[in-house]
Amino acid sequence: MPHVSLTRRYRFCAAHRLHTDFLTPQQNWAAFGKCNNPNGHGHNYVVLVTVKSETGQEVYQFEHLDRMVEKTIVSRFDHQDLNQDPAFIHTTTTGENLVKLIWDLLVEKMPEGSLEKVGLIETRDNYFEYAAPAAVH
Amino acid sequence: MPHVSLTRRYRFCAAHRLHTDFLTPQQNWAAFGKCNNPNGHGHNYVVLVTVKSETGQEVYQFEHLDRMVEKTIVSRFDHQDLNQDPAFIHTTTTGENLVKLIWDLLVEKMPEGSLEKVGLIETRDNYFEYAAPAAVH
Amino acid sequence: MPHVSLTRRYRFCAAHRLHTDFLTPQQNWAAFGKCNNPNGHGHNYVVLVTVKSETGQEVYQFEHLDRMVEKTIVSRFDHQDLNQDPAFIHTTTTGENLVKLIWDLLVEKMPEGSLEKVGLIETRDNYFEYAAPAAVH
Amino acid sequence: MPHVSLTRRYRFCAAHRLHTDFLTPQQNWAAFGKCNNPNGHGHNYVVLVTVKSETGQEVYQFEHLDRMVEKTIVSRFDHQDLNQDPAFIHTTTTGENLVKLIWDLLVEKMPEGSLEKVGLIETRDNYFEYAAPAAVH
Amino acid sequence: MPHVSLTRRYRFCAAHRLHTDFLTPQQNWAAFGKCNNPNGHGHNYVVLVTVKSETGQEVYQFEHLDRMVEKTIVSRFDHQDLNQDPAFIHTTTTGENLVKLIWDLLVEKMPEGSLEKVGLIETRDNYFEYAAPAAVH
Amino acid sequence: MPHVSLTRRYRFCAAHRLHTDFLTPQQNWAAFGKCNNPNGHGHNYVVLVTVKSETGQEVYQFEHLDRMVEKTIVSRFDHQDLNQDPAFIHTTTTGENLVKLIWDLLVEKMPEGSLEKVGLIETRDNYFEYAAPAAVH
Repeated sequence: MPHVSLTRRYRFCAAHRLHTDFLTPQQNWAAFGKCNNPNGHGHNYVVLVTVKSETGQEVYQFEHLDRMVEKTIVSRFDHQDLNQDPAFIHTTTTGENLVKLIWDLLVEKMPEGSLEKVGLIETRDNYFEYAAPAAVH
Repeated sequence: MPHVSLTRRYRFCAAHRLHTDFLTPQQNWAAFGKCNNPNGHGHNYVVLVTVKSETGQEVYQFEHLDRMVEKTIVSRFDHQDLNQDPAFIHTTTTGENLVKLIWDLLVEKMPEGSLEKVGLIETRDNYFEYAAPAAVH
Repeated sequence: MPHVSLTRRYRFCAAHRLHTDFLTPQQNWAAFGKCNNPNGHGHNYVVLVTVKSETGQEVYQFEHLDRMVEKTIVSRFDHQDLNQDPAFIHTTTTGENLVKLIWDLLVEKMPEGSLEKVGLIETRDNYFEYAAPAAVH
Repeated sequence: MPHVSLTRRYRFCAAHRLHTDFLTPQQNWAAFGKCNNPNGHGHNYVVLVTVKSETGQEVYQFEHLDRMVEKTIVSRFDHQDLNQDPAFIHTTTTGENLVKLIWDLLVEKMPEGSLEKVGLIETRDNYFEYAAPAAVH
Repeated sequence: MPHVSLTRRYRFCAAHRLHTDFLTPQQNWAAFGKCNNPNGHGHNYVVLVTVKSETGQEVYQFEHLDRMVEKTIVSRFDHQDLNQDPAFIHTTTTGENLVKLIWDLLVEKMPEGSLEKVGLIETRDNYFEYAAPAAVH
Repeated sequence: MPHVSLTRRYRFCAAHRLHTDFLTPQQNWAAFGKCNNPNGHGHNYVVLVTVKSETGQEVYQFEHLDRMVEKTIVSRFDHQDLNQDPAFIHTTTTGENLVKLIWDLLVEKMPEGSLEKVGLIETRDNYFEYAAPAAVH
């Protein structure tokens, strides 16, 4: 059955460096190129959170969702260095890992089945997405 | 089997107010916040209509689709107050209800299975979508 | 002498109707077309405020400017009907009049010479600007 | 199971004309309108390539994908007349046919199952997409 | 004295090729690179027309300006090959020449002093502007 | 006399932290807020370089300008920490100082009078500009 989804856009500015201790300096450079530069760089990250919504509802859910994402995601990453975040002690701050982390942090705070998709824009030409699989009907 | 879809972008400017007669004034405010302000406000709405298309076709379907959406959606809502629309006598003009209404108005004018998705941008950070379910193969 | 300017972007969503009591209904329609529709419509307005800034400064002026514009402009117009605003009792809510009003409201709260330009985006294809004249050197 | 996808944006500027030898001049005009104008016109095409990606990976795949798309798509179509391309000898350069051609050119150079979606923006209001079907789970 | 300006956005899609008969093929290539490719390419051009406007006016000038630009500029260049235009028999279809041509075509249809600026977006990263000089006060 | 200008868009991703040794930690926080966070953050910076251009020219100047800006600005700041740059040993990496630095670096490599304006987008809502004064006529 068709259904309605709502997507809200959030933003944070953060520094990061692509680097892993499991590789040698040469291997890090080969894997990540200039993104491995020692002093790091940064991005204006955009996060797109898509949730299942409903027609006919009489409750305006923006504010609740905004408060939750603000507290869980934006206040944690905004104006920070991602490489210092506890979640990235053993993993690299790639867009893939970051979008998956955001999904994991959000999904446990939401009713089951309500989170549908998390999108992450890292640069103008670079977008990551982590989506729940389409259910079989 | 993979297939091609075509998405066209349409726009209309409208006023609205989030309010329902089923709630008290206090409950309306609690549910909708500043969107419940008595004199209403407005948006530059963007509508994205996605239809099943075909390769190898020799008929240019833009014009037909444009005429239909223009007549059914744009001319009905552009430079109007959504709360005065007959479809919103008993329902609230939320994005969820509006995107569902646009789907319902369009789907009955189109060949079965050709309408795939309707997207509605209400503000820069606010997007609604009503999509047909992915078919099982 | 070259100098640095800072432009900040603000937004508000408002309803309005182009209409003046100085014209007959027919003249209003001739002058404003569908923008004269009786129940009004609305827009996602974007306001771009450009101020003179300085290199070498050690004071971060964003927050001060943001608070002032938020208080003077955004909280006054956001989620309101512009036609109900006291400033529009005798004038029409055209983009020209609105951008001039925003300039007038801001300029009296700022040090002389610091406000350089106010821009107003009404729709995707429609932009108004009110600028201080370039000084003779 | 949810999974991560990566979307990269590429661009090329090309001329084209919608026209097919299978139709008479009158039929061509009826089918394609001004897009059938004899001397052609052109667009700033945007190509969005979505591939399956993985968390936890230690290989930065942007550069490889960029090189492949640059060589296979951008260098072939950028600053060219699409109607002169060998792939369009017997088919029309519609967005539908072009997005399908880009998919076909890319999919054979990539590991099976890794290409998920190709999007093509032709104009501001005009978007085509060719997507692999969602698998049944 | 500060004053209000209005900017309207228009668009046309056209083919062109950078080439001049005053240069040899080798010199053309050296001057214009891939933009000199023999079969041409094309763009989604955006034209931004800025005119002097007035507060307090009771005449809505959009429609008049739109009709004039539509007739003078858009209908002339949209879905055409710029190199076939009579204005480009002896000059090259560079952005500089095109923005100047648009200015010349518009300025003679408008009251003296009312045209302030013409902007031309050729690609995402490429913008041309032809502006009347700021008057001395 | 009216004249033509050309604006090219460039981009770099960099980390930075707003902090000055001339202030105490408390004063730094008061002046710069979260932009003073100890580990820094980052942005996708956009640089808009406007140069005087000419109609009737038969030399395509994009490539020359691109090479110069790439070498002087992009390769210096892209994927770096601005606070480590020699130019910021004694000054803070505010947008004002950065846009002025970019102007100073470019102007000495260009013919006198040809650089007209440098714009710097730091975030979606934040823009800096350093412009040569309009000449008296």
